[in-house]
Amino acid sequence: MEIFCSLNRFSFIIFIFFASALTWYSLSNPGCFDCKGSNTLGCTFLSRKHKLSGLQALKPTPKSNSNSSLNELIDAIPLHPLDPLTVQEINQVKAILTKYEPFLDSFPVINSLSLDEPEKSQVLAWKKGDALPPRKASVITALNGHTHVLVVDLGLGLVVSHATDPYSGYPIVTNEDLKEALITTYANEDFKKSIAARGVKMSDLSCITLSPGWFGPGEEGKRIVKVECFSSEGTTNFYMRPIEGIVVIVDMDKKEVLKITDNNRGIPIPKGENTDYRYVPQDRPMHMKPINPISMEQPNGPSFNVQDGHIVTWANWAFHLKTDQRAGLIISQARVQDSETGEPRSVMYKGFASELYVPYMDTDEGWYFRTYMDAGEFGLGATAMPLVPLNDCPRNAYYMDGLFVAADGSPFIQPNIICIFERYAGDIGWRHSELPINGFQNRESRPKVTLVARMIASIGNYDYIFDWEFQTDGLIRVKVGLSGMLMVKGTKHENVDQVYENNELDGPLVSENAIGVVHDHYITYHLDMDIDGTNNSFAKVHLVKEKTLAGKSPRKSILKPNRKIVKTEDEAQIKLKLYDPSEFHVFNPLRRSRLGNPSGYKIVPGGNSASLLDLDDPPQLRAAFTNNQIWVTRYNQSEQWAGGLLVYQSKGDDGLAVWSARNRSIENKDVVLWYTLGFHHVPCQEDYPVMPTVLSSFDLKPVNFFESNPILRAMPNFEKDLPVCGAGSSYL
Amino acid sequence: MEIFCSLNRFSFIIFIFFASALTWYSLSNPGCFDCKGSNTLGCTFLSRKHKLSGLQALKPTPKSNSNSSLNELIDAIPLHPLDPLTVQEINQVKAILTKYEPFLDSFPVINSLSLDEPEKSQVLAWKKGDALPPRKASVITALNGHTHVLVVDLGLGLVVSHATDPYSGYPIVTNEDLKEALITTYANEDFKKSIAARGVKMSDLSCITLSPGWFGPGEEGKRIVKVECFSSEGTTNFYMRPIEGIVVIVDMDKKEVLKITDNNRGIPIPKGENTDYRYVPQDRPMHMKPINPISMEQPNGPSFNVQDGHIVTWANWAFHLKTDQRAGLIISQARVQDSETGEPRSVMYKGFASELYVPYMDTDEGWYFRTYMDAGEFGLGATAMPLVPLNDCPRNAYYMDGLFVAADGSPFIQPNIICIFERYAGDIGWRHSELPINGFQNRESRPKVTLVARMIASIGNYDYIFDWEFQTDGLIRVKVGLSGMLMVKGTKHENVDQVYENNELDGPLVSENAIGVVHDHYITYHLDMDIDGTNNSFAKVHLVKEKTLAGKSPRKSILKPNRKIVKTEDEAQIKLKLYDPSEFHVFNPLRRSRLGNPSGYKIVPGGNSASLLDLDDPPQLRAAFTNNQIWVTRYNQSEQWAGGLLVYQSKGDDGLAVWSARNRSIENKDVVLWYTLGFHHVPCQEDYPVMPTVLSSFDLKPVNFFESNPILRAMPNFEKDLPVCGAGSSYL
Repeated sequence: MEIFCSLNRFSFIIFIFFASALTWYSLSNPGCFDCKGSNTLGCTFLSRKHKLSGLQALKPTPKSNSNSSLNELIDAIPLHPLDPLTVQEINQVKAILTKYEPFLDSFPVINSLSLDEPEKSQVLAWKKGDALPPRKASVITALNGHTHVLVVDLGLGLVVSHATDPYSGYPIVTNEDLKEALITTYANEDFKKSIAARGVKMSDLSCITLSPGWFGPGEEGKRIVKVECFSSEGTTNFYMRPIEGIVVIVDMDKKEVLKITDNNRGIPIPKGENTDYRYVPQDRPMHMKPINPISMEQPNGPSFNVQDGHIVTWANWAFHLKTDQRAGLIISQARVQDSETGEPRSVMYKGFASELYVPYMDTDEGWYFRTYMDAGEFGLGATAMPLVPLNDCPRNAYYMDGLFVAADGSPFIQPNIICIFERYAGDIGWRHSELPINGFQNRESRPKVTLVARMIASIGNYDYIFDWEFQTDGLIRVKVGLSGMLMVKGTKHENVDQVYENNELDGPLVSENAIGVVHDHYITYHLDMDIDGTNNSFAKVHLVKEKTLAGKSPRKSILKPNRKIVKTEDEAQIKLKLYDPSEFHVFNPLRRSRLGNPSGYKIVPGGNSASLLDLDDPPQLRAAFTNNQIWVTRYNQSEQWAGGLLVYQSKGDDGLAVWSARNRSIENKDVVLWYTLGFHHVPCQEDYPVMPTVLSSFDLKPVNFFESNPILRAMPNFEKDLPVCGAGSSYL
Repeated sequence: MEIFCSLNRFSFIIFIFFASALTWYSLSNPGCFDCKGSNTLGCTFLSRKHKLSGLQALKPTPKSNSNSSLNELIDAIPLHPLDPLTVQEINQVKAILTKYEPFLDSFPVINSLSLDEPEKSQVLAWKKGDALPPRKASVITALNGHTHVLVVDLGLGLVVSHATDPYSGYPIVTNEDLKEALITTYANEDFKKSIAARGVKMSDLSCITLSPGWFGPGEEGKRIVKVECFSSEGTTNFYMRPIEGIVVIVDMDKKEVLKITDNNRGIPIPKGENTDYRYVPQDRPMHMKPINPISMEQPNGPSFNVQDGHIVTWANWAFHLKTDQRAGLIISQARVQDSETGEPRSVMYKGFASELYVPYMDTDEGWYFRTYMDAGEFGLGATAMPLVPLNDCPRNAYYMDGLFVAADGSPFIQPNIICIFERYAGDIGWRHSELPINGFQNRESRPKVTLVARMIASIGNYDYIFDWEFQTDGLIRVKVGLSGMLMVKGTKHENVDQVYENNELDGPLVSENAIGVVHDHYITYHLDMDIDGTNNSFAKVHLVKEKTLAGKSPRKSILKPNRKIVKTEDEAQIKLKLYDPSEFHVFNPLRRSRLGNPSGYKIVPGGNSASLLDLDDPPQLRAAFTNNQIWVTRYNQSEQWAGGLLVYQSKGDDGLAVWSARNRSIENKDVVLWYTLGFHHVPCQEDYPVMPTVLSSFDLKPVNFFESNPILRAMPNFEKDLPVCGAGSSYL
């Protein structure tokens, strides 16, 4: 504990950084022992508060939305059944747990503590002004090598449910777990020798903590983490300077080094020249004509509103938006107003990124286990850093803070991790040009303006930009952008010509002595569609080539849509096929249009990639939710996390594939749609030293939900309505 | 001829509208015979000139670009080897053809007349200030049932090449062809009786001309067109009011009705209520909260420049941009500047939409033949209507006119059919958040600003939005947006409950008595990649699952990129496979990076659909270019049009599939990449009566082309640089 305290003594802000399944930590003051044993967990909260005020200066105040200030957040009371736990509620849960009999001897580390959402029926029955359903907290803790899953009822002031080790695997790791693992590593004499042997000063050392996955019986019963290190000498982009071959395995509970691997001593540390990516005025010139300032401007302010801290309303949409330690950003109760009748109509009860699976493709001892499941191992919200105004989000964006819980059960605020903004990109909502004769001089076009809710998880090296984009035509586009750093691997080679004879490289050379290791990304979305109510069905509209009967038509073949209602979960495990296509509709069999078509939404894939790993490869067993692109399951409130409730070192005995295997009926039931968006990433030089954003998306699109095009009568743009702008102050 | 002239007499602007393989024409003054036999082809040009001046009022003048005025265009001289023929040059070609011996007896209809581009080597050798290579025109005409393909040398004043009927099929149809077909139809007494029997007044009649495709020997030797009619009573959106079952087959050369089919008299004409889509102030209210004005603003003006009428430069990009009767929009000589060295580097010699294939899925007599190939049958440029400022394109857009040729060989201008604009949508070019400790307080993000060149073809009912988007990181995103009207088919049913027992409906019911017929769209792009020079190779980087040797690693499998150079055209016929994926690289084998990686671009598919029709179905034979998503062929200047040079009623004996079957070597050669972007469209009620835009895209992305991320040192946004805006005049 001394080392940790010494860091506080030096006014060193402890700030743990979860990396693509890893935690960042830099030891600028190795070995300091003058510690008074302060309450480090309390320190964490205070540190963050302190940090928060520093960042506030960067936080623009939207013109027409009153953003919650820090004090407002601290004093907030819950206003909606789905609102996250408040500061007071979190403190109350901590107080209850402190007095909880099983924890009296040893208070556990709080791995996660968040709202235990009320049953859907209670939420749907609730109206503004009603009393909230009982407020409960879901708490997951690791204690003495066991996982405890509790529900705390705040009204009763009691733990009302307590399960121990319900599944294999451990909860999300805490900052403190990882911090301790690094401290343990740094204090290890063999480790210091290994580092010294590579010529790296401890003050230049930057280590990260990697989740180990699960690879058979050998690693069971211990919460372990693997530590990889870099040199940050000469660059802040230490990721580009790996010390190849050193891997330290640490037992997080016993706080001891289990094993140090020190291979590949002959591989030099890549120099990392020109890898610093920070903006420096008067930097060496770039051969590119400068781009004049361009901005989305709304002189009358944005058109959306955020009520009661979480209810976003815009154009014809309304939804509940909140941050979450694990999912990052949760959209709840998304409703679209019928443009003809004004009726608010349910589209989706809950939508969020349920898991993020990133298997690397390298069998080396330092690499084979890198098969991260970032949401369940580290948390997409926990790794969300404050957004950069004007760059991560445009002007007029509204920012929302995250309220999370530290390892000691105290609340802390991560400011500005979600932004909401309106988007106009010169796109067209609909248009048609007709002939200028006979009175039909029609030339009609409507601009497309959308609403975006964005959160960015900086999971160590990688940055994942999660966008939910709402269109007035009822479409929801779910996008993921990938940026940040490659995980590079050291190699002795500086040029591919050195290796063309044999296949020595484990991946593409992206710089001298550095290869980019091939990997995949899979983001699995939980999409609890409730089209006009909870009971929905799922249909595959199979597009089948139908041969024409001889002599019946000059055509030999046509495509026919063959609509089939999918009865069970088994049939709803779907792999996309370009040459055997279907549309996939979630619909309400009891709500029919004027014409008799059932009201529905379809999921429209965009570009995608599929996991090709062996189904019985340990990482793929754990990430079996990526075995199909689409699944539909029967709604069960406990089935939220595609990789299972406990993911860290899990074996795959919980999760989407397990639930779907129950093969429940899904016809005219409350159902959940799951979609996996994948990327294969073969790195190239352009990805070095920071990757230009790669983007993919899918759509949820109304299909016979509306009686007709709901934006037929939308307004065009007129010159007189558009802003009148002058140059910014630096150009005056 | 009388009827046609009578239309001129009534000051009725003749304006032929190409529809999804059809021409629109409305007969407001049926039966007028007082005609002086004016030069109708000359009239066309004058009419268009007149029309142009009316539209000029709508054309905003970009702040920092001097847009070409009409007079400038008329007086223009060619400044670049690829510049389209000028007004003077077109007139000169006409003069040469008028004196051309074979045409002395009977001057042919000019179906197409455009620049015969110089050989690539000449264009590449040319520098500004050099004399232009000899200017030549490519002319295609139909005369007495034969197709003549000529090359006219403007310097020599001679026809230097003349081929007759080089392939099956006819050239692109002319306005006059279609106009005459409608006049012939309207004058037919049996047709009038059929229309009268449906209760439609001739003054409410709106007919369109459909290309017939090719379906075997019966229709050979005649240039035919099929006429379908609608009632426009009560709506300008006549497409929603089909008169089902009447199809008139017209011989365009003999100007005679060959056949009138009049089936399905019992099918009512859909009422088409609430189908008018024109904006009306104070229209009945829509249940949607209004959206405040939002605009992309650039108070210092756009950053791009258009030099010499066609050379667009922006940030690190430069390219030649022109309109084309058939392709619509052609990008030539796209070069990106190396941000490190300043070197302008070749990426693509020529890129354009080469064909657009739209097969409908209905075997009825009035429907089976609807298998349009719009670029080669009607022309994407010929059907491009003037863009609607502020709605089709944002403020600060620069507009470019089309200069095309009428059937008599005279030039005419179609104004504002291309726009160019910068785009900022709140997207992120790259970003990374790092820990605020140890000096690494990195939180860096860069806004993504792009340049878009847009053209919209209104091919009758459908509107195709063609975007080429250039990013500063070297990526080119090629997008297609679909809007406009469905082709609906009349049905006796008003509700799907009437038909659930049997399978009577030929497609989804989208309104009472109207079904949306299922169809596909395929846009095949010609992408003549010249990565750092003309000689390139094509590699498939096959991602293969590699099983781990037992005992070698806890992992059972990894993905390995297996790079293989594709030697021949046959091997480069590629169907995309989600579960057997590859990357597809066009690269310069002789230009290597510092690290030895070859300089390349990869094509990155987004969402796509594939044609499933029988390969020997006549439409699929003609559209065999859609049998694969990717092809790579040896460069041959004559191989521009995926469906062949002559498409109208062609049999598929020319085109991409035929060229590729030659199986030429494509290693270290000048090669052309072809990509087909497809859509299956099962209509739904939301598509009625105008479709919200559906979008898909693919990317051309640098892969080891740059030494590293080329926008690493791009500027972030700063508040001081952004515009200062006030409300527009209507809000003051």
